[in-house]
Amino acid sequence: MPLVNISILSGKSPEYIKAVGDGINSAVIETMGFPQDDRYQIIHQIDSDSLQIQGRDGDRVMMHLVMRAGRSNESKQAFYKKVVENLAANPGIPPENVVITITENHDIDWSFRDGVAQFIGYPDSEITKQKQAGP
Amino acid sequence: MPLVNISILSGKSPEYIKAVGDGINSAVIETMGFPQDDRYQIIHQIDSDSLQIQGRDGDRVMMHLVMRAGRSNESKQAFYKKVVENLAANPGIPPENVVITITENHDIDWSFRDGVAQFIGYPDSEITKQKQAGP
Amino acid sequence: MPLVNISILSGKSPEYIKAVGDGINSAVIETMGFPQDDRYQIIHQIDSDSLQIQGRDGDRVMMHLVMRAGRSNESKQAFYKKVVENLAANPGIPPENVVITITENHDIDWSFRDGVAQFIGYPDSEITKQKQAGP
Repeated sequence: MPLVNISILSGKSPEYIKAVGDGINSAVIETMGFPQDDRYQIIHQIDSDSLQIQGRDGDRVMMHLVMRAGRSNESKQAFYKKVVENLAANPGIPPENVVITITENHDIDWSFRDGVAQFIGYPDSEITKQKQAGP
Repeated sequence: MPLVNISILSGKSPEYIKAVGDGINSAVIETMGFPQDDRYQIIHQIDSDSLQIQGRDGDRVMMHLVMRAGRSNESKQAFYKKVVENLAANPGIPPENVVITITENHDIDWSFRDGVAQFIGYPDSEITKQKQAGP
Repeated sequence: MPLVNISILSGKSPEYIKAVGDGINSAVIETMGFPQDDRYQIIHQIDSDSLQIQGRDGDRVMMHLVMRAGRSNESKQAFYKKVVENLAANPGIPPENVVITITENHDIDWSFRDGVAQFIGYPDSEITKQKQAGP
């Protein structure tokens, strides 16, 4: 969590793609209190005429996060600020061309592996055991 | 707002793609009271066997809108009707092959640019100033 | 309903893609009480470095379902279990590499065809008539 769908322009280098993914991921972890390894990202490469932000033609990115309800307004605002800073620094996407939206769901609405709803706490789930064991 | 993910068959012409984007965008603006320049669209090109609507094989489109809660049922119904009309007229997608779904979120869940949550009203946001200055 | 966005690794065979779509679809129908023909799927092919699950590098899939609120926790848990079983059997995706999330919406938020909100019950909707006719 969260699951992040990211749409960038097609034809970018592996370094650009990695920078986008890393910049969003570190902002998620730093500002919204997710675990270090909580990276669930899908990066879509979209042709310029199919990635429409009010007719703008510069480098640009849109992202949609799905995550559990509960983060504060302040956390979300810190995330928006940080992710735009990160993407401006590397790979150099202008802050005015970063669009972000979030939709929220609930504990029952997630299965990260093994076909179990980890937040509901299956007793035989390895992740649940780790969660119970740990920090 | 709204952010619209649109999935069409791959291999279409630029004119087809533009017609789909334009037809959806003008329906959004006309029926749900969004501003004229409120275009946030991602058009995904999907192979026929990966774009499944109950086994139908004609030309087809599925779209998912994310937008703030608050539009009336009547607005949404007017949108459905209008978007299907527009896409039938150009590029000629059969009304029976248009699938639409909407999920809603809240003011805090949007950042359109600059890493700020515009609907929450950062005092230093250019868009907030424009908004305050009036339509 | 539901609309399922599925992201798999790019370069897979038509048989692999069909197995993924079929395995998810039959799990949806079997565990959550949807009609037999209720298949609305978009399968996205994503390069390995753009489909990130905590740095894992094996075969993998992430899916996001949008559906109406109302399914029980037990139904959702049965779905998670079944879909992972199906995908492990064919095309052989490891259960630890299947990520699932669900977001819910409402009756008004769907139009499956013809530009009408079928769950709201337009009297002139063919689907509404079929629904009213039974079973």
